Amino acid sequence: MTFSWVQGLVCSDCGEAFDFRYLLKCPKCGGLLDLVYDLRQASLADLVDDNFQGMWRFHKVLPIRNPAHIVTLGEGSTPLIPAPRLAPLIGIKALYLKYEGTNPTGTVKDRTSSTAVSSAKQFGSRAITVVSTGNAGTSLATYAHRGEIYSVIFCYHRGDPIKMSHMSLMASKLCIFEGEYDDLIRSVDRCVEEGLAFDGGATRNPFKHEGKKTIAYEVAEALETVPDFFFSPVAVGEIFIATYRGFDEMQKMGMVDRMPTMVCCQSMQAQPIVAAFQSGKPFQPTSVQPTIAKGVAVGDPGPKGPRVLEILRQHSGMALAVSDAEIQEAQRLLAEREGLWAGPTGVVSLAALIQACRNKAIDSKSSAFCIITETGLTSQYPPAHGQVVKTTLEDVRRLFSCV
Amino acid sequence: MTFSWVQGLVCSDCGEAFDFRYLLKCPKCGGLLDLVYDLRQASLADLVDDNFQGMWRFHKVLPIRNPAHIVTLGEGSTPLIPAPRLAPLIGIKALYLKYEGTNPTGTVKDRTSSTAVSSAKQFGSRAITVVSTGNAGTSLATYAHRGEIYSVIFCYHRGDPIKMSHMSLMASKLCIFEGEYDDLIRSVDRCVEEGLAFDGGATRNPFKHEGKKTIAYEVAEALETVPDFFFSPVAVGEIFIATYRGFDEMQKMGMVDRMPTMVCCQSMQAQPIVAAFQSGKPFQPTSVQPTIAKGVAVGDPGPKGPRVLEILRQHSGMALAVSDAEIQEAQRLLAEREGLWAGPTGVVSLAALIQACRNKAIDSKSSAFCIITETGLTSQYPPAHGQVVKTTLEDVRRLFSCV
Repeated sequence: MTFSWVQGLVCSDCGEAFDFRYLLKCPKCGGLLDLVYDLRQASLADLVDDNFQGMWRFHKVLPIRNPAHIVTLGEGSTPLIPAPRLAPLIGIKALYLKYEGTNPTGTVKDRTSSTAVSSAKQFGSRAITVVSTGNAGTSLATYAHRGEIYSVIFCYHRGDPIKMSHMSLMASKLCIFEGEYDDLIRSVDRCVEEGLAFDGGATRNPFKHEGKKTIAYEVAEALETVPDFFFSPVAVGEIFIATYRGFDEMQKMGMVDRMPTMVCCQSMQAQPIVAAFQSGKPFQPTSVQPTIAKGVAVGDPGPKGPRVLEILRQHSGMALAVSDAEIQEAQRLLAEREGLWAGPTGVVSLAALIQACRNKAIDSKSSAFCIITETGLTSQYPPAHGQVVKTTLEDVRRLFSCV
Repeated sequence: MTFSWVQGLVCSDCGEAFDFRYLLKCPKCGGLLDLVYDLRQASLADLVDDNFQGMWRFHKVLPIRNPAHIVTLGEGSTPLIPAPRLAPLIGIKALYLKYEGTNPTGTVKDRTSSTAVSSAKQFGSRAITVVSTGNAGTSLATYAHRGEIYSVIFCYHRGDPIKMSHMSLMASKLCIFEGEYDDLIRSVDRCVEEGLAFDGGATRNPFKHEGKKTIAYEVAEALETVPDFFFSPVAVGEIFIATYRGFDEMQKMGMVDRMPTMVCCQSMQAQPIVAAFQSGKPFQPTSVQPTIAKGVAVGDPGPKGPRVLEILRQHSGMALAVSDAEIQEAQRLLAEREGLWAGPTGVVSLAALIQACRNKAIDSKSSAFCIITETGLTSQYPPAHGQVVKTTLEDVRRLFSCV
């Protein structure tokens, strides 16, 4: 019994197949590469290995061939939380929230950091690197620590202070840049191509994004079906493409009988895919305006942008952009109604669902699923509101009088 | 098949049994009450119900009779993380860390908040209350939100700012007190006895602490045995007593063949149980000095203090106190060696283990288990250390030269 069913790579553009090895782009056409697995008819129960924790229960569809190379902190197996108060409020029959804030560093990035650092070990790399606004850098550096690999993390000087402190704690080398992002990413991409470090970025490395595929598997396992709509935030497109791949694989293996309608959710300040989808035109990078959802502030997602658009068009998907005000409303409603506290980037998909319900863009009798990608613990809080109280019995008793 | 095997209550002091109902102390002698279950010979696999998530997989040994009363955010099922680099460094054969930072609000408190709020619903309470330094108040208020119960949370005005912001976001009423803790707790206890709110405190309510029992079940399930030593932080004694109860129940059901040696871990600034155990004298509350581990800064734990001491004496346990410097060392080592970032309170048990190894108080061929009770995301970070870099290829390339 092989530990991983991975076989090799295939170019999603020209279709050429390649042996299993570390490649960042198609050697033939430069296109985006995907991993290919020996998918057979199987049930989810056949696939799952409960000798492993978290997302590594699905190691057969992850690209690590030797369990000794796995670098894990127990990421995955996040709760799938029904939202019985929020659903009727916003006008949908059933709503499920995949709360990724319970991963080790508090974000969905831990899934891909685990596959990235494990892959770096698999291919013998001694260093890994990424350019990040916060969550990705922290997460990758944490897993690099765990895997005893050197991490060089680049962070923009205007990053979130709490996130930068966390990153500083974990990175082998934290590099703060003040100049142009585009110049930096060109330099880092070049160093990665020269083999100076394993690519921990989200745009190209096919090994990295596989970790997020397990979200689709976990949802199907918990619901024993697929929801009608799957709302995914899109920055570079990693979560969207990875979860799409997960559902597609499950359908090929006969585990699910249909695909959910995939919904691409972006910020109005950075919506290249939404703009292209709604206009029917080819993909074009756009400029980015400031948004509180820093994790989706991407105007040029690289090759995954056109790929997301292609999936949306082939499968009758949807694409929606939300304002900062809608994002803040989603944060507030999620905390007030369901007790979940998430950062602005974390609720982009929920904000898009609320908008879709309000505009009657989806049937109110549907079931929908949103990925809440980050905890709120590392984000700014609304102003505190406490009242100073006295400690005598009469004073304390009065505090309960409104109940 | 009954959903919960709970039968009633028994006084841990006088041994009197009582019907299943909401009681805070023994009606006969005023002693500490425990819940009693109809324990039968069973395997862990028989006990677990995978139709539920997280700690509610163990609902048969939790005190909620009707699943409709469960208030959950998917708490529990936290990763059990081996520490292959830390173990040889500190001098022990095998070390496992139960990382409770991946609970929904980032701490172990979510387990007991879930059983507390579920119990409040079970017994028809419309409000719940607790006096907290941070984590407990946030967690209880979060679950009260989720369960649509009113929460009145009392917090000392010198609490952690990030924790207080989070608490403020979730509490129905956040009450800041500046006066004497002892006066306040007397007033709140009285209001709770008058039925004005369900008791969300850790000192008496037998229904609340049951949630933490599931830590023992999860460890036994993951390891398929029990470790030699079980290091638990002790403030009021909730985790210690609850996990002890879990192991004891498993032994009675034939799921495990022995108990681990229970180790009570306290701060040197607040060590009433350690002092009594080491001196052989009866339990006495002590004064508290300031410590960075605010969650264990308890000098008068109430009735659970003597109970912890009794368990230690009956079962040849150990009791250790650690300094703030040892706590900071444990935080640093945990981050550097294993990639886990935890707050000061979170690593008290690990600091005690490191001390025990250093003093050769335990056999280096043992296996040990530490509960890491909180994430570091809501704690203060060490000073950030980044370097400002330029974005040209030569500059970036140079950053990888040390690899």
